[in-house]
Amino acid sequence: MPEERHVTELPKCSGQDLSGEFLIAPSPDDPNLTREVSGIDHEGRRVTAYVVAERPLTIFLNDQEIVTAMTVGDHPELLAVGYLVNQAMLRRDDTINSVDYDEEGEAVIVRTERTTDYEDMMRHRIRTSGCAVGTIFGQVMESFEDTELDPDVRFRTSTLYSLSRKITLQPSLYLKSGAIHGCALCDGERVLLYVEDVGRHNAADMIAGWLWINRVNASRMLLYTTGRLTSEMVIKTVQMRIPALVSRSGFTAQGVELAERANLTLVGRVRGRRFLALAGTQRLVLDVDPAKVPDDPPTSIRKGAVRQ
Amino acid sequence: MPEERHVTELPKCSGQDLSGEFLIAPSPDDPNLTREVSGIDHEGRRVTAYVVAERPLTIFLNDQEIVTAMTVGDHPELLAVGYLVNQAMLRRDDTINSVDYDEEGEAVIVRTERTTDYEDMMRHRIRTSGCAVGTIFGQVMESFEDTELDPDVRFRTSTLYSLSRKITLQPSLYLKSGAIHGCALCDGERVLLYVEDVGRHNAADMIAGWLWINRVNASRMLLYTTGRLTSEMVIKTVQMRIPALVSRSGFTAQGVELAERANLTLVGRVRGRRFLALAGTQRLVLDVDPAKVPDDPPTSIRKGAVRQ
Repeated sequence: MPEERHVTELPKCSGQDLSGEFLIAPSPDDPNLTREVSGIDHEGRRVTAYVVAERPLTIFLNDQEIVTAMTVGDHPELLAVGYLVNQAMLRRDDTINSVDYDEEGEAVIVRTERTTDYEDMMRHRIRTSGCAVGTIFGQVMESFEDTELDPDVRFRTSTLYSLSRKITLQPSLYLKSGAIHGCALCDGERVLLYVEDVGRHNAADMIAGWLWINRVNASRMLLYTTGRLTSEMVIKTVQMRIPALVSRSGFTAQGVELAERANLTLVGRVRGRRFLALAGTQRLVLDVDPAKVPDDPPTSIRKGAVRQ
Repeated sequence: MPEERHVTELPKCSGQDLSGEFLIAPSPDDPNLTREVSGIDHEGRRVTAYVVAERPLTIFLNDQEIVTAMTVGDHPELLAVGYLVNQAMLRRDDTINSVDYDEEGEAVIVRTERTTDYEDMMRHRIRTSGCAVGTIFGQVMESFEDTELDPDVRFRTSTLYSLSRKITLQPSLYLKSGAIHGCALCDGERVLLYVEDVGRHNAADMIAGWLWINRVNASRMLLYTTGRLTSEMVIKTVQMRIPALVSRSGFTAQGVELAERANLTLVGRVRGRRFLALAGTQRLVLDVDPAKVPDDPPTSIRKGAVRQ
């Protein structure tokens, strides 16, 4: 198994050049990801609009069917691996023999050297999952409790503003059609990955999948999400050993509580110059006068513009 | 069993007066529903903000444990009954003997005259649920296919604007803390119910619970949601026999497709004077000049204001 690496050191053990930005970026021009539908606008004009296509994807771990998720579907392999990692079904010391995507069968099969019977886990799942929270296994919470986040890394607010602006301006399914969540993995001033999916959890899982496959150490990076800062997003971030989670959206009490427990830096409601940090604030360095930051994103950017 | 009734006719067979507005409204002043946390804002000032509290609620149907949902928790009985109705586990002809909320045990037990073994259903659930979509049973889709929505009811755009404004101005957890979804059941110009929860599905389920318990016929009403117009929201709306679903947010392709199939009126991106209708547009009557409608909600309303 290759050594773990910090991306800033730019090793290339998996063959992928990690020095650039947007190694993975949204694909708003991919015709498979949106559908054009017609309707009327508020003035009664016939308009066409793009809506995001979703498709089911069933994830298998060896012989065990694990879950069927609805996904935009542009990164099925990353989603499958990341889901299993974030559910603590794939461990750091596991070796993946193959990841096969069967487009017609709408399935991904992840095969590992170690095989385990997840029957018990799946039974437990019935009892703890809810629509609002997805699924949390006991194993996940154990791994959460065991993870220590880097206490020494710092994040400048000038970097926060610059990343937020970069992500907002990047062409995306969000700008094309709306109604989608995005997640971005950032290393310093660089946006390494920006992925989108119908569920914010899927987007976070894809990033976990990329980190696992490329054996990248994210312990000095930052995760940006468009979704709410819920307990699940906090747990996933901590499992990736990422010390900061940043969002345009707001907080839930459980999200804040878990972030405090894990010493995760939690910044929400990032809009223009404004933000609110409710945990791990000691990692923030306020190096820029907010008055010099534009208070709102350019009004010329409207998500899901319609055509007449 | 009492006869079904249209609320506009105002019968009172369940004892509840249905003639007013906001029969159920958000409770932003309830200290159990939010937590005050401190942090810093973009200028480094110490601030306190409110975040929504969530708690687990386990729903039992007779002796069967069904699901644990995370909820704000102000209407556990409505959530439990509505969840079971929307999962097609409670049928229209069922009789509920009791609904017991055990606050300490964080559980609601719904007891019916008819008892059924839901083991098979629960097994099926494993195979089809995903974080992004919650749970869809075969039975739910059957009931979806069988439901015919009223083709003759019409909705004026002046009513849409007025309802949207009324809901936006109503004091709510959303305005107090953000990061929460709301659902409102509207009858003509009246907002009958406005409920909020961490998940948009919970909010819709609470409305289904209220409709079922009060035996109210919603076939000429309108459902407003702050969340995205996904397949699940469409399915739940159709199961309640409500012919129109309206949202501030956008659409997913599956949501639009199912709405077309069910002939549900689907209106999204309602902001100020703008909206986009992508299904069932024949029910809309454009009776007002949009130029006379303010284009954006008052800027004085900021969700989750912080205190210094």
